[in-house]
Amino acid sequence: MNDAAPDDDLPSAAIAEPGEVGLVEPRDFTSPEPFACDDGSVLPGFTLRYETYGRLNPARDNAVLICHALSGDHHCAGIHSLSDKKPGWWNNLIGPGKAVDTNHLFVVCANVLGGCQGSTGPLSPDPATGRPYGLAFPAITIRDMVRSQKRLLDHLGVKKLRCALGGSMGGMQALQWAIEYPDFCDKILAMATTAREGAQAIAFNEVGRQAIMQDPGWNQGDYPKGGGPRVGLAIARMMAHITYLSDASMDRKFGRREVRAALARATDPANPDLQLTPASPSPAGFDVQFEVQSYLRYQGQSFINRFDANTYLYITRAIDRFDLAANYGGSLEQAFAPVKARTLVVGFTSDWLFPPEQNRSIVLALQRAGKHASYAELATDLGHDSFLLESPELYALVRAFLAS
Amino acid sequence: MNDAAPDDDLPSAAIAEPGEVGLVEPRDFTSPEPFACDDGSVLPGFTLRYETYGRLNPARDNAVLICHALSGDHHCAGIHSLSDKKPGWWNNLIGPGKAVDTNHLFVVCANVLGGCQGSTGPLSPDPATGRPYGLAFPAITIRDMVRSQKRLLDHLGVKKLRCALGGSMGGMQALQWAIEYPDFCDKILAMATTAREGAQAIAFNEVGRQAIMQDPGWNQGDYPKGGGPRVGLAIARMMAHITYLSDASMDRKFGRREVRAALARATDPANPDLQLTPASPSPAGFDVQFEVQSYLRYQGQSFINRFDANTYLYITRAIDRFDLAANYGGSLEQAFAPVKARTLVVGFTSDWLFPPEQNRSIVLALQRAGKHASYAELATDLGHDSFLLESPELYALVRAFLAS
Repeated sequence: MNDAAPDDDLPSAAIAEPGEVGLVEPRDFTSPEPFACDDGSVLPGFTLRYETYGRLNPARDNAVLICHALSGDHHCAGIHSLSDKKPGWWNNLIGPGKAVDTNHLFVVCANVLGGCQGSTGPLSPDPATGRPYGLAFPAITIRDMVRSQKRLLDHLGVKKLRCALGGSMGGMQALQWAIEYPDFCDKILAMATTAREGAQAIAFNEVGRQAIMQDPGWNQGDYPKGGGPRVGLAIARMMAHITYLSDASMDRKFGRREVRAALARATDPANPDLQLTPASPSPAGFDVQFEVQSYLRYQGQSFINRFDANTYLYITRAIDRFDLAANYGGSLEQAFAPVKARTLVVGFTSDWLFPPEQNRSIVLALQRAGKHASYAELATDLGHDSFLLESPELYALVRAFLAS
Repeated sequence: MNDAAPDDDLPSAAIAEPGEVGLVEPRDFTSPEPFACDDGSVLPGFTLRYETYGRLNPARDNAVLICHALSGDHHCAGIHSLSDKKPGWWNNLIGPGKAVDTNHLFVVCANVLGGCQGSTGPLSPDPATGRPYGLAFPAITIRDMVRSQKRLLDHLGVKKLRCALGGSMGGMQALQWAIEYPDFCDKILAMATTAREGAQAIAFNEVGRQAIMQDPGWNQGDYPKGGGPRVGLAIARMMAHITYLSDASMDRKFGRREVRAALARATDPANPDLQLTPASPSPAGFDVQFEVQSYLRYQGQSFINRFDANTYLYITRAIDRFDLAANYGGSLEQAFAPVKARTLVVGFTSDWLFPPEQNRSIVLALQRAGKHASYAELATDLGHDSFLLESPELYALVRAFLAS
């Protein structure tokens, strides 16, 4: 779920070298047709910001749709300028010769409906008022995201999806694709995901939403772009970030290592909007003592500079309400009845946000429904974010599944 | 760590019936002597609020000290008035004929130094200014807590502790007792605890502290009693509360059950200081949808009415800095070298805050140091808070260990 902020561990070389997508440019697709949302409201139209890599083949059937997670966006590979220090969030997976091979595949990735990176969302102007939608934005669902992506693919001339592929909330979208457009999807690859969250995952999202909504800057969702509940959003992000990692990986990365006070202050640039250390440290002050504290504060700080608080509310709610069984007659088997795609689900042993059992249960239900589905479980100790990290095992799985 | 707010699951009958401690009264012990804290500062004296149950025997060696966890207090058994709906937080374990049998034992429990339930802490008046200490309070440690408890036991005439007993931070105190006063402790019983937290536990505490310190109401710790960063404290508590439970127990208790909007609002009494639902729900409002949300909001709400934010900062920091190996020459074996007490450590399989391995490693180190130590692991799916909940298995362990 950190997919817009690739970790330092990721290879940062995305310059136009062999094996790299190289320079890419985001584009906007605007659908002028009204869009009826699951909550009954109608958007007069919408925009999705997207990127593509590789070329659509003459048969128009080599497209792979990358679906991003909560904090992700359309920029999943390549760089936007030669001075970019970090490539797109899944650059390790996508490129010429890589697991998602842009020599043969046409890769499409769009910022989701409701997002804040260029697609229509709560920050967009409400035609009714000319001001940002805020809470007047429809209560979008994962299915709304998928149906808006279909319009983009139609616009791009895609006749059939080779694969819909994503991790975490991206995996939810991939599953929804298989149900919603059975004849359009050859394959589905969902990782580190769930057909519905349990109470604990809902609980973490709820605390994050409360941190945002209790911040006076939230103001019932009515705030100018770039403003809003920055402190609440940083708190929500810091907490959520813990759930994307694992006890073991945090212990390896930080353990109980201490930072010196000077260093601690240096990693917390005095931001007039949010100062994550108290202004004047007292002898009994609560400065950063451990490296993990400094890392979290940095995560919170950088998130508020690129993300919108209302989008955080809307997307986490869409995730919480995603429940394929409940939404399709009461059982997962029923939900999966229309599926024609071959499905691969990948779980990660150390993922405690969407644990392996939840991933496995998707495949069991698909199999009980008589579908072509398989499950792979990768042993990692990197937690939920494993799907984003370097893993030759994962690359091999993805490559083989796409080629099969 | 929820020990001051026993769960609805706990038996609430603590009236003066056979088997119950019955009516109890808290008392204050004030030590007029200066108290040198680990951080080098000196308190001119201090008060501990405490309760006792049972009688000290003529040999004065039948005392059991109950050490409480982060949010606990001195009131661990019995009731304060006949109209009390809930007994003390460990009433299921303590009483005539119970595992900690007050027919034979003299039970003492005190609110920790730095606490906010009657003992000297950041809310207490600083003699230098006449106003609450706030951040001028010493950076107390687990060892400071233990050394202040020793003064109370001396005052009560206790010659020897039969046992120091506690869970979570209470277990840390029990271990510290064994090291600090080896000739004074016969036995140590520590549950759901650790000799030092890992990075993940520190990370959760850090986010909680940030939620408090970023709340404008915190004001560098300078706020009137009953005021302060109520929103930040509620956020911290809601998040921490998740870490005290388990995915399985939350799923069993709440699953994805939904509450109707009316019910949701009823469980969030309009509190002028903190209203945990937006004031005017909009069609796209973020009201409570799931029961688990309503439960968490209630937890946050009730916590701010009984706890102090600065105490939360001070105590979580004491917990984070507790590191027996680091504090005693680099290894746990060295830390445990002076120990004479027999030790029992109890871990719980589903505790992911202080997981079984961390509990087990305490006993392994004691054994390597040549001490009398044993480890029991109880299979539960109730998470960290298992030590507080009804468990005949735990009762039998405690009873047998105290009798041995």
